[in-house]
Amino acid sequence: MVKRTRFDATDCPVARSVDAVGDWWSLLIVRDAFDGSRRFGEFQRDLGVAKNILSARLRALVDKGILEHTDSDYVLTEKGEALFPVIVALRQWGEAFSFEPGQPHSELLDRRDGKPLRPIEIHAADGRLLTPADTEVRKL
Amino acid sequence: MVKRTRFDATDCPVARSVDAVGDWWSLLIVRDAFDGSRRFGEFQRDLGVAKNILSARLRALVDKGILEHTDSDYVLTEKGEALFPVIVALRQWGEAFSFEPGQPHSELLDRRDGKPLRPIEIHAADGRLLTPADTEVRKL
Repeated sequence: MVKRTRFDATDCPVARSVDAVGDWWSLLIVRDAFDGSRRFGEFQRDLGVAKNILSARLRALVDKGILEHTDSDYVLTEKGEALFPVIVALRQWGEAFSFEPGQPHSELLDRRDGKPLRPIEIHAADGRLLTPADTEVRKL
Repeated sequence: MVKRTRFDATDCPVARSVDAVGDWWSLLIVRDAFDGSRRFGEFQRDLGVAKNILSARLRALVDKGILEHTDSDYVLTEKGEALFPVIVALRQWGEAFSFEPGQPHSELLDRRDGKPLRPIEIHAADGRLLTPADTEVRKL
């Protein structure tokens, strides 16, 4: 087992998020939870991951307060639901760069009208659209 | 070395993104590139990661078209720059849930007025604000 580096003592919120989520499997479990999976078997079927790995990841997500384990269901907490922009951002980047034009892929749609969502935009406090070059990180 | 599962044959854009980015180290390298790191030594100093690991991750990010290697600099490509919403979403989630109230952390600021950015919102094509419950995934 490779020892995972811990980032939770850093002052960078990105690194702390990375540490809190855990690993890519955990992020895909969170994605599945957004997609409606609740039961161990549903996650297992969708991810095709070994039971012991899934079991450990689910437990870690519960420990981190991202999932809640009620009866036999795993449900996103408020903290877990707040990962929605992370999942949508990864999805939109994948749609833009990881498929050939016209190649079919799963889609996240607006329930009301069945249309794809608007691409995420980054805005200033006053509403201006920002590119990475318009921003700077202030380190401690 | 743990064999990494590959998600690049899946029809889920989230999973493909996860596969394309590689691992958490790679994501933190991308974060550092947004924060202004360009040289091997800068990434190494910031991440405190072993040189061989950093070297392999940088090469993989170049192979995936996320970074470009020019002279001694590693610079985000257009595909790499497009990860900005992913990094901002992880940062904002970390700010919300991974620090005690008032605990200092690095900040992403608007260059023009030095203010923190607006929290990312997810919008429908017609502009309505969407929560996870307002959306559904159409699988293939």
